Parts: sequence; structure tokens; C-alpha cells
Amino acid sequence: MGQGKDIVVIGAGNVATHLSQALHGAGHRILQVYSRTRESAQLLASRLGCPYATSLDAVRGDAQVYILCVKDSVLEEVARGLQGRIGDALVLHTAGSMPMEVLPYPRRGVLYPMQTFSRDRQVDFAEIPLFIESATDEPLLRELAQSISRHVYAMGSEQRKHLHVAAVLACNFVNHMYALSSDVLQEAGIPFEVMLPLIDETARKVHNLSPLQAQTGPAVRFDQNVMQAHEAMLPTDVREIYRLLSQSIHRKAQNE
Amino acid sequence: MGQGKDIVVIGAGNVATHLSQALHGAGHRILQVYSRTRESAQLLASRLGCPYATSLDAVRGDAQVYILCVKDSVLEEVARGLQGRIGDALVLHTAGSMPMEVLPYPRRGVLYPMQTFSRDRQVDFAEIPLFIESATDEPLLRELAQSISRHVYAMGSEQRKHLHVAAVLACNFVNHMYALSSDVLQEAGIPFEVMLPLIDETARKVHNLSPLQAQTGPAVRFDQNVMQAHEAMLPTDVREIYRLLSQSIHRKAQNE
Repeated sequence: MGQGKDIVVIGAGNVATHLSQALHGAGHRILQVYSRTRESAQLLASRLGCPYATSLDAVRGDAQVYILCVKDSVLEEVARGLQGRIGDALVLHTAGSMPMEVLPYPRRGVLYPMQTFSRDRQVDFAEIPLFIESATDEPLLRELAQSISRHVYAMGSEQRKHLHVAAVLACNFVNHMYALSSDVLQEAGIPFEVMLPLIDETARKVHNLSPLQAQTGPAVRFDQNVMQAHEAMLPTDVREIYRLLSQSIHRKAQNE
Repeated sequence: MGQGKDIVVIGAGNVATHLSQALHGAGHRILQVYSRTRESAQLLASRLGCPYATSLDAVRGDAQVYILCVKDSVLEEVARGLQGRIGDALVLHTAGSMPMEVLPYPRRGVLYPMQTFSRDRQVDFAEIPLFIESATDEPLLRELAQSISRHVYAMGSEQRKHLHVAAVLACNFVNHMYALSSDVLQEAGIPFEVMLPLIDETARKVHNLSPLQAQTGPAVRFDQNVMQAHEAMLPTDVREIYRLLSQSIHRKAQNE
């Protein structure tokens, strides 16, 4: 591992929190964190033992690396807001779905940690795949990434966009299925915990089988009696989801 | 554990295979297996070292327990087809979504293993939740269930129907999200393996957080730019799923 870097972290949400703690833990110096929201800035700064700023004008200009971990919808605005302050530092963002080019800086790159972060949940950063992109600074970016993760991959913006959609499907939509399942259980007075062995095995299976091979249940068997009975038990909006997904499962099985 | 029982298994699919092997391993005697399909009957019988039948007329009548592990859509027909042959044995089915009453026998019950079984994948049966129901033979059924699993719960048919819908959502639909994700990755030339750490963490998270608390991503943030860009990348049928699920995630987050 090379020398620790001087870093400013822009943002104090879930990604900013976990990433800056991992960098801090790997011996880098977090010089400052920024968040518009004082409470968030304060909380993260206190975890890292560093100062914080709540206005972009107060962001210091002498770091080697700036990492922008903000909502995609404000990324360009925040990136522009730092112009003129940053000298010739390397500027990174962490957004899976945004191209590197949204950063109006000569030295720029992307460090996309593909994981689902919740603020109060510990994650082992070493196991998180990091996808990096930089035309000007790939060696430095790779060194930084490898200091916190054992899984670093170079990937361009176009491919990363697809990766990000795939992640939404395999994580956010999966989690929403857990949420809908939890609602059905709650309605019937059954604790969500009984579902955990099935949830775990469903995830484990695709380590060895393709999702297509792993599929089971009424939709892939096209057991219409069961599907109709299920639909009848569900509220209207969930029924529509049930129907659409069952059709999609069935179609996929037939096309193989 | 009580004495081993004399058991006939009707069916030779995934559930029949895993359940009969677990029962065999726990010291019960599988006297015979039945499947309409000779190849399936033969394969399972050879795994268990027992005889098989391919016609209901050839099913022997002297077992203590008959376990019907057949598709829901043929369960009633198969159950009726055995009438007159079974004496006063206990007759069980393993279907989550079917009421106990589909079995036209005085001694009857349900043994529903809530898990996703694929024929060539080993599972640790001891960790699988078994849901049991019997008006006449609960002690015997409980003893049988506890001989193969550490997680046995009594549950009536009505509640079990809801449990089964919840299982379809948390398993089959989740697995379909993995399948759709895999398609997107394949299209972009990215191996599915990179998704596994995210899949695993998504499952692990709901051991400690509720699915609602665990949710992240563009839909819960209602980041319309990202969602629109994602939709544009997807084929029409998947786009419809993306839209419906994103709306559902957003609605759920707002209602809390």
C-alpha cells in the first residue's frame, strides 16, 4: 500500500459514511467532510474526528483527493459549486449511474462501491466490489481503492450504467419483495423471522446455479390454480405485481 | 426421537426427493416411492434403495404414513386415486397452498417444508422450517417432523395459505429479480459473479433491519433522472416491471 492521502469527503449520507470510515481506517487522512445538513455533517465528522463544513465556500482547497458522495440529482450542481476551489486535485464521484464526465475537472474519476449501505449497519468494506474509472489517474485511484477493498475492477461509464441497473434489480427490487412478503405475513400474524432460512437459501443457490436453473414455485410450473388463489389474497397493487412477475417468470422458462 | 416409521412417498420431484432422503437419513423406512414417470421413480428409488411404482394401483397398502408430494394441480386427483388402498394410515401432503381437507381420509395432515428445492442441490433439512397441521395426529406428525428439522411450527390451513404467498414473494420473485439482473449483466458483458456480494448483503440485512428500514436506491429516494435512464436501457417487458416496482417502493416509503 502506498502513502495515505489527504481527502475531503463531500456528502454525509450512507455511502459517504461507510466509505470515509473505510478510508480513515486504511490510514488516509480525512481533512474535512461537507454536508448541507449540519446534523449529518456533525455526526460524520465526529465519527472521523475531523472538521466539517456546511457551505461549499468553506470547503478547503488543499486536499489531494475530493470524493463527491451526493445524490445523483445534485451531483452536477455540487461538482460545479466546487469549481475554482480545488486546485489540481483528483475529483471522484461514487455514483453508479452517472458518467465520469459530469465532473468538470481535468483530473477526475469514478469510485463506485456496489453495495447497499444503511447508516447504522456495519459492512466489511474489504468484501465490497469497487468499480473504478479514470482517464488521467487510474494508478492513484486503483491504489486508493485497493487500500480498502480486495475486489477492484476497472469499468467504463457505459458498462457501469448497466451494472447499476442490474444492482437495482438484484438489491432494491429484491428487498422490496422482502417488504411485500413481510406485509403478507404481518397480515396473517406470522413473524417475518420464519422467512429468513428461505431468503438465505434463495441467495445462496445462485452462487452455484444460474437464477434460471434455480427457479421453483407456481409461476415456473404455471400452476394457474395456485396463482389465482394467491392473487385473490393480495391487495390490488400487489396483485398487479404478482401477475406481471408470474407472467415474466413463465415466459422466461418457456424461452429456454 | 420415537421409532422409525414405515412410509410410502407419492411423487418424485424436488420436494419428494429431499424430504424422503431426510426421512431415510433419520431412520425411517421408505417402503416404496411412486411416480407416474418411470425415470423419476427409478432415480429416487435408487437413491433410497427401495422399490418403486408407476401406477397408483401398485402402491402398497401397509405403510403407517403416506406422504403426497405432487403438484398442487393433481393433488386431489392423486389423493382420490389412493382411496381404498391405504387402510387407516396417516395421509399427509406437503403443499403450502392447499388446505388439509383436500385429503379424503379420516387420519390426515399437512407437512409443509418452506424451502426452495432443486434436485441436485444439497440442503440441510435440519434448518428448514416445517409447518404442520393435523386434527387427528398432531403428536405423530410433530414427532416425524422433529426427527428431520429443528424448526417445526403448528399452523392451520388458512394461515399457511398466506405463508405460501409470502414465500413466493420472498423466494420465487426474488430469484426472478436475480434472473433479470443476470440478463442485464450478460448484455453488458459483465459476469453475474460480481453481483453476489450485493445479493448476500441484501439478504443478510433483513436479519437485523426490517425490509422497509433496509431499502436504498433510486426508487426510495425517488430519483427520477436515474429511474428514467434505467427504464430507457431495459427491454419493454422488464421496463414495465421496473416502473411498477419503483412506484410501489416509493409509495411504501411515503406511507411510513
